[in-house]
Amino acid sequence: MTRPYNFAPGPATLPEEVLQQAASEMLDWRGTGMGVMEMSHRGKDFISIAQQAEADLREILSIPAHYKVLFMQGGAIAENAVLPMNLSRGGRVDYAITGSWSQKSAKEARRYADVQVVASNEADHHTTLPTYGSWQLSDNAAYVHVCSNETVHGVEMHDLPDLAALGSKAPLVIDCSSHIASRPIDWSRVAVAYGGAQKNIGPAGMTMVIVREDLIGHALPITPSAFDYKIVADNESMYNTPPTYAWYMAGLVFQWIKRQRETTAQGELTGLAAIEARNVAKATLLYDYLDASGFYTNKVAANARSRMNVPFFLPSDDLNEPFLAGAKAHNLLQLKGHKSVGGMRASIYNAMPLAGVQALVAYLKDFAASHG
Amino acid sequence: MTRPYNFAPGPATLPEEVLQQAASEMLDWRGTGMGVMEMSHRGKDFISIAQQAEADLREILSIPAHYKVLFMQGGAIAENAVLPMNLSRGGRVDYAITGSWSQKSAKEARRYADVQVVASNEADHHTTLPTYGSWQLSDNAAYVHVCSNETVHGVEMHDLPDLAALGSKAPLVIDCSSHIASRPIDWSRVAVAYGGAQKNIGPAGMTMVIVREDLIGHALPITPSAFDYKIVADNESMYNTPPTYAWYMAGLVFQWIKRQRETTAQGELTGLAAIEARNVAKATLLYDYLDASGFYTNKVAANARSRMNVPFFLPSDDLNEPFLAGAKAHNLLQLKGHKSVGGMRASIYNAMPLAGVQALVAYLKDFAASHG
Repeated sequence: MTRPYNFAPGPATLPEEVLQQAASEMLDWRGTGMGVMEMSHRGKDFISIAQQAEADLREILSIPAHYKVLFMQGGAIAENAVLPMNLSRGGRVDYAITGSWSQKSAKEARRYADVQVVASNEADHHTTLPTYGSWQLSDNAAYVHVCSNETVHGVEMHDLPDLAALGSKAPLVIDCSSHIASRPIDWSRVAVAYGGAQKNIGPAGMTMVIVREDLIGHALPITPSAFDYKIVADNESMYNTPPTYAWYMAGLVFQWIKRQRETTAQGELTGLAAIEARNVAKATLLYDYLDASGFYTNKVAANARSRMNVPFFLPSDDLNEPFLAGAKAHNLLQLKGHKSVGGMRASIYNAMPLAGVQALVAYLKDFAASHG
Repeated sequence: MTRPYNFAPGPATLPEEVLQQAASEMLDWRGTGMGVMEMSHRGKDFISIAQQAEADLREILSIPAHYKVLFMQGGAIAENAVLPMNLSRGGRVDYAITGSWSQKSAKEARRYADVQVVASNEADHHTTLPTYGSWQLSDNAAYVHVCSNETVHGVEMHDLPDLAALGSKAPLVIDCSSHIASRPIDWSRVAVAYGGAQKNIGPAGMTMVIVREDLIGHALPITPSAFDYKIVADNESMYNTPPTYAWYMAGLVFQWIKRQRETTAQGELTGLAAIEARNVAKATLLYDYLDASGFYTNKVAANARSRMNVPFFLPSDDLNEPFLAGAKAHNLLQLKGHKSVGGMRASIYNAMPLAGVQALVAYLKDFAASHG
């Protein structure tokens, strides 16, 4: 039987072959007689797993050598506090509001810093991206924070702001939880990228923080040692026991990304380029159908539509339950929208194959035909 | 082939049948078509897993109804900060020093509170337990903190202090990371019990906090939302995405504990009582042999010896490498002692069967005979 297609927003579907490998290694990793969960994080076996995962992520995302990769805990919600603890020095910080996640980040930062909201799409119900030229950037911000993909509202920044060109000297921080490893990151514009692992990287319970070295070492005195970037970096993410199994799973996913191949009009693409091309194809297929259907609607401005999270609405909320029941019967799972937005949401992360989106579109057509 | 016996201090060996179940459910949990890692934490499938795990832990440890069970992240090292953030109100707190873990806890608490060291076994190189009657308890401490099992030094409190009898009105907080679920907890003496999961409970990356309800709701303003006990409790540990897979694995371990049976002179014991009897038998076997050997030494005072972590020394450090190499050849893994103590350490948590300790003792005898 084919596995059902799981459109959960995160924790989310993982590549089948990654899960199979994990299952096969559960009791014995490469003849060591131990499962990965049972290994001391200080032993050479786990250290080799950890180092390989970091090396693979650096290769996939072309992370420059002067950036540290930290494997932490607490997810993006904890990081919303950890970031200003480490970077704000208690002063001014700039936040752009583009959806519920950036809103949460700004709210949390107010515990530690003087938060300036430089732009907001709240009046548009978080369906647009405020033009970068309109942002009210501070002169003296310790950083500028954006959420580069809003999981709930389905709003993605396809080009990140070039702060220098906008007249700000501040480093750009992106919360990229829900689209990390789905496309390249332009490190000439980004000083810090952070995100929970549970969308494109692996199981919940691990947080990636990729941070330019010169920003490390200025934590507020109230920063817990386990969340001080300098302590974490100096101890190679092993000051406290890391979430070893999540780290291992992330490593399997990174290897899976590196193995991907996609034949396109531009020739054969590999690795992240293949992943990105597939993500574009999946999103295009779904948005094009929704727009053409005359039945479903997606309210996000065309230039801001997320490749990862696609919220959409049926003509009447009365159809939601029949739609979800029919989807489940067609092996299409977890399509219910976030409660703050309503309607439906299809999260189509890296591990969702094109065939899954094709199956979804086929079901969307059938449902529209029988309820239109 | 029998699996090797893994004496790692944590992450540590897990019950074989638990790993087998996890492997078999990796791609499809109970016909849902999703692995547990792929489930939304807000869906009914994962919520049923989470609630069952909590109910089982409550049953195993007889946790009173007026205590909350929080499933958090960051391990005991993060909790060393999270605890004073939540409970100290910035005032006086009492810490007993019995080894390197309580020392770390006290050091971290100084960021947030006025720490009084009420007792210390440092002069004895952390091999004793200071008599409770000698503790210099404060009049006004927000809490008294102990580490009830010191993983590195192998020192365990077999009776917890009765603070009321000692004249203190403060609640007792225990860091029980490395012996949680190995024996009952006397809740008439304990107000907060916390610990990382990676010894007796499951994979690294989850932290258990069991806290009396009346202590919740007094966090310092600088407490990150994700670590505010009240926010975590009000959201049933789902304010931020919890480490779902670790939670599930913990649930499998709790079910395994409940299934245990042990026939003793006192009749058949079940569940935690069976586990405890087996832990006593394992520790007795190992300590009795070490003491009688005339070759190996354990330096911890008899009343303070840990059932979980048994540090021991060979007559000469020159024998350490041959000892470890021979152990590995006998399928006895991860016996090297902590670098701060030296020598060897056998961690014999719940999942270590009696046969593993018997195999270790047999090897100890052979090694002593050929090197004595």
